[in-house]
Amino acid sequence: MPFEKMNAVVGQSGGPTAAINATLAGVIKGCLESDRIDEIYGMKNGIEGFEKEDLVSLGKYFEKDIRQLDLLALTPAAALGSCRKKVGGDEEIEKIYELLDKYNIGYFFYIGGNDSMDTIAKLSDYAERNADKGLRDVKFIGIPKTIDNDLGVTDHTPGYGSAAKFVATTMQEICRDCAVYTKKAVTIVEIMGRDAGWLTAAAALSKYLTGMGADLIYLPEKPFDEECFIKDVEKKLSGTKPYVVIAVSEGIKFADGSYVGAKKLTNYDDPFGHTMLTGVGKVLESLVSEKIGCKCRSVELNVLQRCASHVASKCDIDESRKIGEAGVKYALKGETGKMMCFRRLKNSDVYRVEIFSESVKSVANIVRAIPANFLSSDSSGVNDKCIDYMLPLIKGENAVIYEDGIPVHFEL
Amino acid sequence: MPFEKMNAVVGQSGGPTAAINATLAGVIKGCLESDRIDEIYGMKNGIEGFEKEDLVSLGKYFEKDIRQLDLLALTPAAALGSCRKKVGGDEEIEKIYELLDKYNIGYFFYIGGNDSMDTIAKLSDYAERNADKGLRDVKFIGIPKTIDNDLGVTDHTPGYGSAAKFVATTMQEICRDCAVYTKKAVTIVEIMGRDAGWLTAAAALSKYLTGMGADLIYLPEKPFDEECFIKDVEKKLSGTKPYVVIAVSEGIKFADGSYVGAKKLTNYDDPFGHTMLTGVGKVLESLVSEKIGCKCRSVELNVLQRCASHVASKCDIDESRKIGEAGVKYALKGETGKMMCFRRLKNSDVYRVEIFSESVKSVANIVRAIPANFLSSDSSGVNDKCIDYMLPLIKGENAVIYEDGIPVHFEL
Repeated sequence: MPFEKMNAVVGQSGGPTAAINATLAGVIKGCLESDRIDEIYGMKNGIEGFEKEDLVSLGKYFEKDIRQLDLLALTPAAALGSCRKKVGGDEEIEKIYELLDKYNIGYFFYIGGNDSMDTIAKLSDYAERNADKGLRDVKFIGIPKTIDNDLGVTDHTPGYGSAAKFVATTMQEICRDCAVYTKKAVTIVEIMGRDAGWLTAAAALSKYLTGMGADLIYLPEKPFDEECFIKDVEKKLSGTKPYVVIAVSEGIKFADGSYVGAKKLTNYDDPFGHTMLTGVGKVLESLVSEKIGCKCRSVELNVLQRCASHVASKCDIDESRKIGEAGVKYALKGETGKMMCFRRLKNSDVYRVEIFSESVKSVANIVRAIPANFLSSDSSGVNDKCIDYMLPLIKGENAVIYEDGIPVHFEL
Repeated sequence: MPFEKMNAVVGQSGGPTAAINATLAGVIKGCLESDRIDEIYGMKNGIEGFEKEDLVSLGKYFEKDIRQLDLLALTPAAALGSCRKKVGGDEEIEKIYELLDKYNIGYFFYIGGNDSMDTIAKLSDYAERNADKGLRDVKFIGIPKTIDNDLGVTDHTPGYGSAAKFVATTMQEICRDCAVYTKKAVTIVEIMGRDAGWLTAAAALSKYLTGMGADLIYLPEKPFDEECFIKDVEKKLSGTKPYVVIAVSEGIKFADGSYVGAKKLTNYDDPFGHTMLTGVGKVLESLVSEKIGCKCRSVELNVLQRCASHVASKCDIDESRKIGEAGVKYALKGETGKMMCFRRLKNSDVYRVEIFSESVKSVANIVRAIPANFLSSDSSGVNDKCIDYMLPLIKGENAVIYEDGIPVHFEL
């Protein structure tokens, strides 16, 4: 008996990355190539848009010109838009099912971080709990993305390699910039990561590869101690080179668990007299200025680190496309309630991964920090084991198309 | 009569750029190709190093492997190191002349901004004033570089095009990042430029080319008015798209000439209780939060905009090499006390420049702001005349060599 043709829907959720559109390109390719999938709907702004029936037909963009998929894969942020919404209780899910019926959806793909996996878990759990109610058969597949690399089970997350490549590339450039003067100076680079230091750890890569990288690295995985920090910096400043470059995760905490950064500033002397939040870079900058007294500046990589598609990792973009395609294959095989994962092959001289699926329940809402055996015993952050883990993920450069001096992006 | 062989010395000064090493590569190539120049000395950390006789022989790095020049040209910041020193009075210059004798220097090349041109002016002026004293014949040539593009006479400065390309590329990526959510939000991007807004104006390029760029631009060339600013932002927020992206020069000033940014923060509630300086981005961020109340964040491009060689403009790098080479040719022709300049050819359908020299006295210590006929009458910053001026400067991409995922740099 031939399969009934059904439609697919795909959405993106959570913070933007340089690879989330690559995964979308993979899902679209997988759907286009299947004779069991008819229309591919994109939900605008994730599940929020789906609930509002804000859907866009994606096929037309790519059926005639498959090269548009390459353009999409190298466009940063979420082409379909994103949201921060978590799906709530059964009442909400019932409405979602009405729409799944209305649009004849058989395959539901959701690309995102922890919140998105939670949505996939809730939808598939609902289907399981109501198996006797004659619900339509929908395959719910989650495909991970986060620059934070903090999801469980998967070896790494799509998006991380590109952000890590940006950090490594930029750290080398910042170090060159710092190296031109003879005066003692400290530069603090604040890198994203509230609960896990994976991205900040990438600041060790250019140091390892070229000697031009972070001299000191502070991660959320280790409690921050002011005195130790000042001693570390003073020791580095007493070395042969006059400049010290420090990488710090936005999420470093004191031993009591409170954040070092993100403090509210009040009553300061700004021309408008407002309050202001400041990040950990500025906090450490003022600490160095006061306790050591040398020149100090802080640099926040900010959103640049997550949307710099022009210097995305080819490894990351290729893998992100593949895991998207694989998500479609697994759904067509009948899997549901799964998150797609990477497994790094051991006993291989070269870096190789295989893709598998795992029950989304076992990965949702777990934050995977850097394991203790990847951390160094001193203040350099991570050890060679962690370097070996990160290195293959930043490798390779994409054939970015430029027009008039800037990259060409895909436009929905 | 054959010319006597003499040595050359070259130095770099002022803030790093992505193109200052390209100019160094040009000077080295010019020297290597001349049979009238023997040794090429590099002064470490500019004139400061020269006075300390901290010199390095450059020929050996390139004589055997000319491709190292390509690597040097794509290495950010100053390979020879830099300084912020201005040459002082005659006593200091007499000592410099002793060293010029000692090292048999006939050609003196100095790559830098306004301070460096001041040094060339002083040295050549001293030679002129003491023409009757039998001083050795040294040709002093200044070659400009600054991301600020604020030197006089020259159409533009080496280094500007690459920084502008980084700004345009990054603004497009930041806009994509901002576009993913439906909630009203303002993003303020702080760009370098104390006295001239050329680099901030580059934020208009991606808007012009793709629609994804700064919605509002604030430049030092126009006095900043708080009320107008809030009105501008509110008007943009009431448009169809929920996000507004603002580009602002670090050096914008109120009508009374005081800086909007760089205010000292005191008595704020940070965990260490220190004072802190803040930039204009943070100041405007708090202003928007308080007066409009929508989500607002600020992004400071910081040193990244001046050292991002991985996305340097090919036009800029090629021109920077050529102007370095031309400097050597002009010195060999007997010119001294000159700054090398670009002239844009009119009556040409395509962008073309020619290189010429100008008395350094007529360029030193002049800041060239954006001319009034390049500014728009509204809050969008600059007009199409300015766009036409900037566009060719960011064009073209370089063949950056990557190894293990990050660019390979030249190492002295």
